[in-house]
Amino acid sequence: MDADSYRPTAMSPADTAEHDAVFGALARSVRELLEAQLLTQVDHDVAREVTGQVEALTARLRKQAGHEPLGIEVGPDGRTRAHGNAVIGLRNPVAPPLHVERSPDGKAWSSFRLGPQYEGPPGLVHGGVSALLLDQLCGEAAAAGGAPGMTGRLTLTYRRPTPLGELSAEAWIAEVNGYKTTVRGHLKDAEGRPTVEAEGLFILPRWARELMEKQGEERPDRFE
Amino acid sequence: MDADSYRPTAMSPADTAEHDAVFGALARSVRELLEAQLLTQVDHDVAREVTGQVEALTARLRKQAGHEPLGIEVGPDGRTRAHGNAVIGLRNPVAPPLHVERSPDGKAWSSFRLGPQYEGPPGLVHGGVSALLLDQLCGEAAAAGGAPGMTGRLTLTYRRPTPLGELSAEAWIAEVNGYKTTVRGHLKDAEGRPTVEAEGLFILPRWARELMEKQGEERPDRFE
Repeated sequence: MDADSYRPTAMSPADTAEHDAVFGALARSVRELLEAQLLTQVDHDVAREVTGQVEALTARLRKQAGHEPLGIEVGPDGRTRAHGNAVIGLRNPVAPPLHVERSPDGKAWSSFRLGPQYEGPPGLVHGGVSALLLDQLCGEAAAAGGAPGMTGRLTLTYRRPTPLGELSAEAWIAEVNGYKTTVRGHLKDAEGRPTVEAEGLFILPRWARELMEKQGEERPDRFE
Repeated sequence: MDADSYRPTAMSPADTAEHDAVFGALARSVRELLEAQLLTQVDHDVAREVTGQVEALTARLRKQAGHEPLGIEVGPDGRTRAHGNAVIGLRNPVAPPLHVERSPDGKAWSSFRLGPQYEGPPGLVHGGVSALLLDQLCGEAAAAGGAPGMTGRLTLTYRRPTPLGELSAEAWIAEVNGYKTTVRGHLKDAEGRPTVEAEGLFILPRWARELMEKQGEERPDRFE
């Protein structure tokens, strides 16, 4: 990963909007299929038939396809587009996806629903899924506050079980020390009680610092 | 969550094997569709058509379906079946899924491939995905060594970027102290270099301890 990883999209604003609508809807449909096939109790014959039909659709999509992960593009509006991201990616059915709100004072927050595909202990959110979401949210808080970095260390403290369903999370910058940013955050259940607390240390990588020095910028505006 | 969460499956061994083959294949097909739709570059018309077909398959699977997450069943062989689990679940396309090997001296290990749906920074595994996998693996090491628990605290230290692709991970019990088990582990890249280190504290919940006291067992054999 280096500065070239953030390539501008080749599309016009109108084409970008249509592209996102079309492929966002495709990902959403697969996300719903994913949940439906987890809960289904159809007969084995029906399951076998659906499996064959899913395989045919996969073959059709693969006829014309890239081989590289989506990476991060820069959109026509100058904002980053991380459509493959495992937490926020518009095109990624693994992602819930989280819609993250941010403010320039270094805060990030989101409300979302976690379905049965995020289960660990029976009926509860997988402890590692809580870590996944909080890593993303803490990283976004660091970036929102102009002090971005890659995760250097992340500590999760599990205060109580997190039930699947409606949840929320928030994160905020606790301290900025040169190229190191400390962020705290937590996941909250439907009653607003914190269930998992996070503290993350985010470090700006050397290539980004060198790019900044070359460009005379204080902080790269697109690193997150 | 309580002791009743671990319900025995109502199926015979033969029915269980067929059920797993059929629904495992369905989940695998959806996992491949998930990856294909992320990388596809088909025309918008094709993408719209496939979206409609996926929605029809979802509707078919939902005609006969449960509403609860899969939870953890106990199979006819006495082993737990966590088919909905976000890391190891046979029926969960969000899971890679990891096939975890375990030994009774408290070790767990796995080799696996992470595709583009696990991306964070361009071309790299999402830091939170590394946390997700290591949480599961550390929990399995604790259970394998007869000292299981739910995650109480988890600390991840990111030593170097983890590229998408072929990876492995391992975890081992570092210390058992009453109902608290400390586990260490790491994720390794294709060259075998550790990329992310984990230390987890796993705590046996009160309901499990009470169940043990009632049954006169030293440790519940099925908690993980």
